[in-house]
Amino acid sequence: MQKIKFETDYQEGAHPKILERLLARNYEQISGYGDDTHTKRAKDLIRRVIERPDAGVFFVVGGTQANSVVIDFLLRPFEAVVCVTSGHINTHEAGAIEATGHKIFALPGKNGLLDVNELKNFLRHFYADPACEHSAQPKIVYVSNSSEYGTIYTKQMLKDIKAVCNEYDLILYIDGARLGTGLTSEASDMDIKDIADLCDVFYIGGTKNGAFLGEAIVFPKPEKFNLKNFRTLIKQHSGLLAKGWLIGTQFEVLFEDGLYFENAKHSNRLAMKIKDAFKDAGVPFLFESFTNQQFFILTAEQHKTLSENFDYKIWEPLDDGRVVVRFTTSWAMTDENVDKLIDAIKNL
Amino acid sequence: MQKIKFETDYQEGAHPKILERLLARNYEQISGYGDDTHTKRAKDLIRRVIERPDAGVFFVVGGTQANSVVIDFLLRPFEAVVCVTSGHINTHEAGAIEATGHKIFALPGKNGLLDVNELKNFLRHFYADPACEHSAQPKIVYVSNSSEYGTIYTKQMLKDIKAVCNEYDLILYIDGARLGTGLTSEASDMDIKDIADLCDVFYIGGTKNGAFLGEAIVFPKPEKFNLKNFRTLIKQHSGLLAKGWLIGTQFEVLFEDGLYFENAKHSNRLAMKIKDAFKDAGVPFLFESFTNQQFFILTAEQHKTLSENFDYKIWEPLDDGRVVVRFTTSWAMTDENVDKLIDAIKNL
Amino acid sequence: MQKIKFETDYQEGAHPKILERLLARNYEQISGYGDDTHTKRAKDLIRRVIERPDAGVFFVVGGTQANSVVIDFLLRPFEAVVCVTSGHINTHEAGAIEATGHKIFALPGKNGLLDVNELKNFLRHFYADPACEHSAQPKIVYVSNSSEYGTIYTKQMLKDIKAVCNEYDLILYIDGARLGTGLTSEASDMDIKDIADLCDVFYIGGTKNGAFLGEAIVFPKPEKFNLKNFRTLIKQHSGLLAKGWLIGTQFEVLFEDGLYFENAKHSNRLAMKIKDAFKDAGVPFLFESFTNQQFFILTAEQHKTLSENFDYKIWEPLDDGRVVVRFTTSWAMTDENVDKLIDAIKNL
Amino acid sequence: MQKIKFETDYQEGAHPKILERLLARNYEQISGYGDDTHTKRAKDLIRRVIERPDAGVFFVVGGTQANSVVIDFLLRPFEAVVCVTSGHINTHEAGAIEATGHKIFALPGKNGLLDVNELKNFLRHFYADPACEHSAQPKIVYVSNSSEYGTIYTKQMLKDIKAVCNEYDLILYIDGARLGTGLTSEASDMDIKDIADLCDVFYIGGTKNGAFLGEAIVFPKPEKFNLKNFRTLIKQHSGLLAKGWLIGTQFEVLFEDGLYFENAKHSNRLAMKIKDAFKDAGVPFLFESFTNQQFFILTAEQHKTLSENFDYKIWEPLDDGRVVVRFTTSWAMTDENVDKLIDAIKNL
Repeated sequence: MQKIKFETDYQEGAHPKILERLLARNYEQISGYGDDTHTKRAKDLIRRVIERPDAGVFFVVGGTQANSVVIDFLLRPFEAVVCVTSGHINTHEAGAIEATGHKIFALPGKNGLLDVNELKNFLRHFYADPACEHSAQPKIVYVSNSSEYGTIYTKQMLKDIKAVCNEYDLILYIDGARLGTGLTSEASDMDIKDIADLCDVFYIGGTKNGAFLGEAIVFPKPEKFNLKNFRTLIKQHSGLLAKGWLIGTQFEVLFEDGLYFENAKHSNRLAMKIKDAFKDAGVPFLFESFTNQQFFILTAEQHKTLSENFDYKIWEPLDDGRVVVRFTTSWAMTDENVDKLIDAIKNL
Repeated sequence: MQKIKFETDYQEGAHPKILERLLARNYEQISGYGDDTHTKRAKDLIRRVIERPDAGVFFVVGGTQANSVVIDFLLRPFEAVVCVTSGHINTHEAGAIEATGHKIFALPGKNGLLDVNELKNFLRHFYADPACEHSAQPKIVYVSNSSEYGTIYTKQMLKDIKAVCNEYDLILYIDGARLGTGLTSEASDMDIKDIADLCDVFYIGGTKNGAFLGEAIVFPKPEKFNLKNFRTLIKQHSGLLAKGWLIGTQFEVLFEDGLYFENAKHSNRLAMKIKDAFKDAGVPFLFESFTNQQFFILTAEQHKTLSENFDYKIWEPLDDGRVVVRFTTSWAMTDENVDKLIDAIKNL
Repeated sequence: MQKIKFETDYQEGAHPKILERLLARNYEQISGYGDDTHTKRAKDLIRRVIERPDAGVFFVVGGTQANSVVIDFLLRPFEAVVCVTSGHINTHEAGAIEATGHKIFALPGKNGLLDVNELKNFLRHFYADPACEHSAQPKIVYVSNSSEYGTIYTKQMLKDIKAVCNEYDLILYIDGARLGTGLTSEASDMDIKDIADLCDVFYIGGTKNGAFLGEAIVFPKPEKFNLKNFRTLIKQHSGLLAKGWLIGTQFEVLFEDGLYFENAKHSNRLAMKIKDAFKDAGVPFLFESFTNQQFFILTAEQHKTLSENFDYKIWEPLDDGRVVVRFTTSWAMTDENVDKLIDAIKNL
Repeated sequence: MQKIKFETDYQEGAHPKILERLLARNYEQISGYGDDTHTKRAKDLIRRVIERPDAGVFFVVGGTQANSVVIDFLLRPFEAVVCVTSGHINTHEAGAIEATGHKIFALPGKNGLLDVNELKNFLRHFYADPACEHSAQPKIVYVSNSSEYGTIYTKQMLKDIKAVCNEYDLILYIDGARLGTGLTSEASDMDIKDIADLCDVFYIGGTKNGAFLGEAIVFPKPEKFNLKNFRTLIKQHSGLLAKGWLIGTQFEVLFEDGLYFENAKHSNRLAMKIKDAFKDAGVPFLFESFTNQQFFILTAEQHKTLSENFDYKIWEPLDDGRVVVRFTTSWAMTDENVDKLIDAIKNL
């Protein structure tokens, strides 16, 4: 029997509504590189949902690309980005930010979230150094919502971070690889308009929320930046898909009738079921998450038992023999499969 | 009426056999980043067709990415790549090679093809300069087949270039964005095994030959390079698609039963029909091409007439009012649409 | 007997007035990185000679560094620099510009000088390409005066180039590694104020005109650029000399009483003597130069004879057995040594 | 009255023996870029003192340059360097390493020194991550001796670090900006031969130990690396000084008769006098240093008093009003000036 996979939120293909639309357009002759009506409509739908008709919207293939292009575009060669140590750009993007020439200042953070006091202290010390002219200069603050640990920011947390950014003339950038689950979490007090209001640039992840591939970079206040050659930089970063309508069409479907948020809600609901089951079984979590990524600390035996029928991600083996694991749900996960997992948890 | 497009070879979606396979796997739970059985099978099918069971095969999303990753991987920071001025890396990749830190030495070439004597002269002069230590050092020779102008190399031409590469310890890299049309052209005396034999690394373009997206980088003689961390560099270049099986599956279908070459033959056959029509009408071509890209020099009036019902690429306006245009055919182009164009040409 | 060297203009140390000043300050305790009164005074002296009291002036160690820092500072990651193929940044800087991520568009030029019509044509064609968004974007025009071939620009030539720059929103940058000989040439109709008026940024070469080392980068109109972190970028490029006063002091001496221009005049005067001697001997020059670099085409026999007692640079061996050579004079060259060379030329 | 400066170890010019030699050669005609007999002799003297006649020796202008060139040369684009957070490359080099495209993994360390257990843990966790393929790959371990905090490594500490490097196939690189004071400290149990034996590459700092400028990069076991184009990379990094003999000559003088180590001993001896005085006065040090950099924690009042007649570096203001300061001695510091400082300390 094939194990049921809770490994990632990108292990299935695309939502059936997306498939249907792509198939319908397969033989349509469409201009390349996103210069087509479907892509234009997708951009407008995103502008509508954030209520910013002038927003700059650009599609790229993946999340690492979104991060690299945005950061490379906004920084001058002596500038740097600040994030938490667990930030995706600092861990699993193979040094992509540094490859564009820019330093990352990594702060410890809390549960995957940037702590505003840590940020303030860092900046205060940085500028107190009489030789700070000899350092790369902080310019972007990068946060992920939901974070790499499934945790989320409250509106107040982001407001506080933005206030520090304003004080030090920093750009606030939100990595939204998992923006859907972040915003539809029962613990969230924000919607996508709040995100657009609070930050300078963010991206909306499609890959982890119903699309085959594709992310939408959004500059809600385009007058703040000269975006004229942004597409040229996307091209340089290999992100200008020849058949750009493939991404445009997917975002069109996702933002036409709220499918993007429905998918994320579905993921979160199933994740809460799993969390409750582990809680009931007395399995500790690494820290509490209200989104589709759940981190638990399994004993060696529990891990042995569960891994017989389920695949999940081994996050980190602990020195005492226990193991931190991640269970992830997606738009395509079924209640049926989750219930099988819950049964297994009950029998631990 | 919608105009019929001969603009590019990437204006339609994917071949129906590919669609079918992707749909069949949409709900299968598949591990990420190409670590799956379908992708493995696709690699093996490519190894089989080049008769090199140990070849290194890697999938990336697009052509600019293939070029950037390969060149970045193979060059040390003081090394450079040599190509013709019309080479794609030198023109329409937004400086992606230079963005990885490497210089391009561009030679004029002939009809889009690298001339072996120009190459020899360049290298002889380069090393005759007593200060050549102060220059970036040539290390890769980049050629495209078919070229950006639709022209192709003969086996002897590539052998001659490879001999120069061997003499100067240079790596020969073939950009195969249009490898299908290059090899299935009636004027070609090579097959894909010859390509694998003659060069050190090449890529097989999927985007322009039946796939939604995706290119296959092939190192036919992997023992020549330490490929251990090639995937890490792909990740850094944003090329490791989360749902990697999407590309793997497409190449599986393309190389299972020769679909890759059938698609290309189809494109070439239709292009020859168009060429003959223009020839009969006395319209000059920029230079003779035997593949799916055809470059003609239209008078202003001819251009006005044809552009009423057909879209094609304006390559370059000439100072005398005429215009160089490109007509492109693809795997999805129909005889019916080509015949409409031919009728229009006859009436010029 | 040691041969007399006409190889380069940087084969001797520093002018005795510079030596004297450096020695006088050897034990003074001076703050690091150019944050000292001598360096400040040197900057003011340069501002005075160009009559621009607000100019941004920065010292770096060498010419490649000046070029890399200036270009890296002024370009965004998708932008490129335009120059002639013989431009120093395109030939003998080991790919330093590309190493900062930027493409060089190289135009043939004439005798080492950028031709304004070539520049116009290039730009016109560039923007006529409907796919120019997919190319690196021209943003800086780089010229050297005197050029790498000893030739110089007239004021009109620079005005014409600047007009094109203005039309296309390009920055004009003058590499002044040999600015002294360029401006004091009998054929020049410009002074350093004209340079400051005509361009956006230039550098004044110390290494080739009396200093041990050091170049002064000058932004005559600092309000055009945000220069705030320019020193941080110099530091990143390894150009912020710990004992920065060494460079400051040298430029102080060079610009106190016109020594900079005296040194260059001396070099040019001796070069003219050599040119006349070759002319009288019927030896052809590659093209006429009125500065301290002189390029001649020697027969194999002439080369054999002269190289017995003189060292000079072999620029390029010609296919017919002749050889292009370069004779260079410097601030430290003596009339006595030049006369020995002239005697030898007379006896060719 | 001018304050006496204990700010840095690079606030005076060059040792009188160096001045004398430079002056003697000022009018000698010497080939450029270090291709001269003096530079060759300097390299041989360094090879002799480390007893490795085949060592690769290269001169560059400054320390940031040495670090950038070495690390850029040795790393492939997906590789990274590991160091302590206080490592110079991680703090005050303006992001120069990242500007070459490479990530820095920073570990806390102890008193400025890399802790071998921290290093082991880092590497163990790195490779335990199943997704470590998606990270930049550690390849160089960078340590400074003496460190940025004046502390030094024992031979055993370096042996232990090297053993870990060997286990994980990492390169050990020692930043020797202050190698002289590190090795001549009363607390050191190593000499320069030990350094050459224990590491793969190191540099010998001239700037901070008697030279105007210049550092010597040494590859003690050149057979481990292909050094063929190292000079080309130095050129690309703007480090190939036109008048290269200036650096060569300085190192010739420094390594002819042990002047390099005498200078450092002198610095250390004076620093110990200062340390003892502060100790006697009950002023705490940040951590104990046995080299020419001494870090103390002054009360606001003490700082006010001392700063009236002495300049020293404010390292970091503490939240309680005290201030961490650095006193530095150099080859040129006099006993007389140190005694004045000691008198002032006694009266605190």
